Amino acid sequence: MALFQGLSAFPITPADADGQIDKAALARILERLAVAEVDSIGLLGSAGSYVYLSRDQRRQAVETAAEVLNGKTPLMVGVGAFRTSEAVALAKDAKPAGADAVLLAPVSYVSLSQDEVFQHFKTVSEATDLPLCIYNNPGATHFTFGDELLSKLAHLPNIQAVKMPSPLKEDVPEELNRLRPRMPSDFKIGYSWDMRSADAVALGGEAWYSGMAGILPQQVLKLYRAAQAQNFADIDRMNAIFKPLWDLCTKLGTVRVLYGIANGTGLFDGQPPLPVSPLSQTEAEKVMQAVSSLSAL
Amino acid sequence: MALFQGLSAFPITPADADGQIDKAALARILERLAVAEVDSIGLLGSAGSYVYLSRDQRRQAVETAAEVLNGKTPLMVGVGAFRTSEAVALAKDAKPAGADAVLLAPVSYVSLSQDEVFQHFKTVSEATDLPLCIYNNPGATHFTFGDELLSKLAHLPNIQAVKMPSPLKEDVPEELNRLRPRMPSDFKIGYSWDMRSADAVALGGEAWYSGMAGILPQQVLKLYRAAQAQNFADIDRMNAIFKPLWDLCTKLGTVRVLYGIANGTGLFDGQPPLPVSPLSQTEAEKVMQAVSSLSAL
Repeated sequence: MALFQGLSAFPITPADADGQIDKAALARILERLAVAEVDSIGLLGSAGSYVYLSRDQRRQAVETAAEVLNGKTPLMVGVGAFRTSEAVALAKDAKPAGADAVLLAPVSYVSLSQDEVFQHFKTVSEATDLPLCIYNNPGATHFTFGDELLSKLAHLPNIQAVKMPSPLKEDVPEELNRLRPRMPSDFKIGYSWDMRSADAVALGGEAWYSGMAGILPQQVLKLYRAAQAQNFADIDRMNAIFKPLWDLCTKLGTVRVLYGIANGTGLFDGQPPLPVSPLSQTEAEKVMQAVSSLSAL
Repeated sequence: MALFQGLSAFPITPADADGQIDKAALARILERLAVAEVDSIGLLGSAGSYVYLSRDQRRQAVETAAEVLNGKTPLMVGVGAFRTSEAVALAKDAKPAGADAVLLAPVSYVSLSQDEVFQHFKTVSEATDLPLCIYNNPGATHFTFGDELLSKLAHLPNIQAVKMPSPLKEDVPEELNRLRPRMPSDFKIGYSWDMRSADAVALGGEAWYSGMAGILPQQVLKLYRAAQAQNFADIDRMNAIFKPLWDLCTKLGTVRVLYGIANGTGLFDGQPPLPVSPLSQTEAEKVMQAVSSLSAL
């Protein structure tokens, strides 16, 4: 089991306009990820539109994924929710539905204090015996973890990893040198934000949590292998080839781009959850051009 | 019916740790608001923790409120949700449950474009024949309405009002002069953010959407009457008396303060939805001191 290490692929969750899961499309997407041999799956992350789905829909997605993966690829599932009692319920659902780990984001409406988030994570982690990864994504959740909070959480029994937003390349060593001494020795620090994550892994991050790997696993694995080998020349060369796609993610929003690729490659004939709109035809064409150019990797 | 005009009181939604509505406590709070003769009720706003409650819990809260108010005080209810189809379902529930109007906030996880929010509001407004008030609260929803979007929405048939965050006193005239010519003549512009709203109303805002009025209706009505009379000396005098309470709202978060007052006045023996924590005993004492000092109004 390579939980919290290596390349973790975050797929979209194909669903209809009401959020009913398209199990066949989800299975198609997950089978490709298993065949590509990503190190783990991050179901129901931001790419997987977890906040847009009901508890029942989320359980169905996990059950479908567990059936498809059949224990061959570790399955981590997002259990974030506004309310602690709802996140607890989702965490309790995860293991019987077939998950190997849970991922928890501090989804917030009322601004939360560091101590409120500590209590929230502690309560959820105690509701399951699955290992838990902290989902640190201030851009989506509007909550910023302080180092002290991360350290306190890392010392709770079930909390074994954090998914950090990748800083600029030049800031990665400082961040890891600052965080590592505060964490238990077996605690895993991984990174997301695809355009920066290869560098973050090459400089010591233990995992890359990737939305793009959820739809283009082969291509992202090439970049991941360069990162693993700390081959910075190859990372730079490949990131230059990825650049048009990274730029479209910045401009159009990663989730919209992921759905555009799912449509363009025939994996899923459907849309993101409204109010999030699908790409225009022109935008979709630009995205698929950027995907085509990845053949130069 | 004074919908979208005057003082609209936004109560908390008393509930247990799982979000099950405490109907008796909700009835107690609403009866006080009706007796105080606020102009309308804004149920399930930010003060009412709408995002922390399920569809069924929200329907029960609306039904309880409609029964208590019995048509004497207009009832507006929040129908915001991440997913358009969920907001549509909530809007469809509102009228049969007894609501007179709906309030819609652009709750967002993926950042939304102006056009996505337009489509979201159009779809929800077409799902009900109740009038709709736009909930503009960038601090909570992380979405900023442009003037053009507000104007386009204001011209849709059911959309009749907006709840704006109060700007600084000196900026109110410019804002109203900028927005009014872009809106239909019967479109109502109201304000929230209690510490600033009396001035905003005195300078031309047509409604004050108030969380504090949801728990201290008599006291806030005094300040509202001064605003209505454009008596700026009285507004300043009363805002000085309110200042310790406004400062505690800023420091501790308005929702936590509202629950503290509900507890301290014996209206509700319960807590905000976790992960939002109740006040410490010291904080609660400071809040009740600030409430006591309002006797000088």
